[in-house]
Amino acid sequence: MRDLTRDSRFLAINTATVRAQWDLRQAIEGVARAGIPGIAPWRDQLQAMGVAAAAKAIRAHGLAVTGLCRGGMFTGFDRAGLARALDDNRRAVDEAAALGAQCLVLVVGGLAPHSRDLAAARELVRDGIAALLPHARAAKMPLAIEPLHPMYAADRACINTLAQANDLCDALGPGLGVAIDVYHVWWDPDLEREIARAGAAGRLLAFHVCDWLVPTRDLLNDRGMMGDGVIDLRRIRGWVEAAGYAGFCEVEIFSAENWWRRPPEEVLATCIERYRSVC
Amino acid sequence: MRDLTRDSRFLAINTATVRAQWDLRQAIEGVARAGIPGIAPWRDQLQAMGVAAAAKAIRAHGLAVTGLCRGGMFTGFDRAGLARALDDNRRAVDEAAALGAQCLVLVVGGLAPHSRDLAAARELVRDGIAALLPHARAAKMPLAIEPLHPMYAADRACINTLAQANDLCDALGPGLGVAIDVYHVWWDPDLEREIARAGAAGRLLAFHVCDWLVPTRDLLNDRGMMGDGVIDLRRIRGWVEAAGYAGFCEVEIFSAENWWRRPPEEVLATCIERYRSVC
Repeated sequence: MRDLTRDSRFLAINTATVRAQWDLRQAIEGVARAGIPGIAPWRDQLQAMGVAAAAKAIRAHGLAVTGLCRGGMFTGFDRAGLARALDDNRRAVDEAAALGAQCLVLVVGGLAPHSRDLAAARELVRDGIAALLPHARAAKMPLAIEPLHPMYAADRACINTLAQANDLCDALGPGLGVAIDVYHVWWDPDLEREIARAGAAGRLLAFHVCDWLVPTRDLLNDRGMMGDGVIDLRRIRGWVEAAGYAGFCEVEIFSAENWWRRPPEEVLATCIERYRSVC
Repeated sequence: MRDLTRDSRFLAINTATVRAQWDLRQAIEGVARAGIPGIAPWRDQLQAMGVAAAAKAIRAHGLAVTGLCRGGMFTGFDRAGLARALDDNRRAVDEAAALGAQCLVLVVGGLAPHSRDLAAARELVRDGIAALLPHARAAKMPLAIEPLHPMYAADRACINTLAQANDLCDALGPGLGVAIDVYHVWWDPDLEREIARAGAAGRLLAFHVCDWLVPTRDLLNDRGMMGDGVIDLRRIRGWVEAAGYAGFCEVEIFSAENWWRRPPEEVLATCIERYRSVC
């Protein structure tokens, strides 16, 4: 396993971690100022700043873009809506390419409106990714399926285990991989095996860290800083690295009541400290 | 599939559904008065009423006891604590036998205190159930492992899929089965297969229903009434019955802000109506 204690060279910040405090320009400058070498923006903030301006600022600061958040959401539409969603996903691919991102993260979508049919939603996702892949391959932009915690199956993502994501990658072929966020998969009894499977296929595209708090007070916005919860971060990173991953550890924390209320410089300093001490 | 629309003969009420309004005596009388033939008590209310008195009242009303909630919690202890927990679990077996319950439901426990080692917790659970089984077999009281939703992995149960529960049953042998609660397993892509596996082994001991609300506002106490959420209840019941289950549908709803605030007679009437129309 890599020794992370001595510097921050594999640390990246997903801008969601400081999104309540900073717009994207501020985040780019703040992350660079903190000596953190990687960043992962969200599309709403990217569009507010402008893609060209963001790409220029990111290059000027020499930051790696570990991923663009996010494409996906293939299930929430009628047929016309699906066409619009695919157009928007192709734009997301182009934006990711303009930023030089390492991948476009896909949060695939939950149940279709007024539907209880999870199997059908999972088919919509497979078809949506299949439809997006040619454009992504042409742009040489890897798509990273992010399995989300089962508590988001209804409304955010019906791909809820790494096994499902691996199965989709097997079915749909090259240009597709996975983003592993410990928050979503830490509980999975098959995690080690499925990480090894993803690694053997060369599809480990991103690795996100935060922590699971006990108690968790909100399903969406109560993620913990690394070390403040119960996830065995080092064990999971060990599995990921044993499977061949040599990329960044991207910190992504949604925290309405805690970290989003603190000075962003303090948040980043804490990310650095915890990255070195507990990740 | 069975036709549930014409009567309530396979309906049971887990007393958690009306626990804010009624003690166990009131629940027994209220469930019987509503013409519901099954009940599943919790041990705290059982002990408050007294086991002999509860058994007598349940018999007097001719109610089936679809399960006793709950044994388990094998992980929260040091060695001396584990011995006490096992003693308490043996008492739970005896109480379930005194009530003529169809099973003792096991909520197995989450991470051990100050531990992040899920694999170790899962071993504690295996060892705890193994230690409890001889007493349960002697009492002819089936133990029903209830896999809990992954969002409870840290603090309530580290058995989070039906596959894990089936694996434990395979490993530990007779006297052990599973309780399937749709709330915990509805998202699982392997659910149909694992239900068939459990059924083929004769280990489907209980079937619990409620619904998953969108949005869910609380991780513990925001379960929905059947039909108010997104779970495809009839499809899952179809799988369970195709696997050989012919027992009760037990309604278990934790609902601090809604159903626990309503008159319990209204709650039971709604359970009957939804059981007939959507389950």
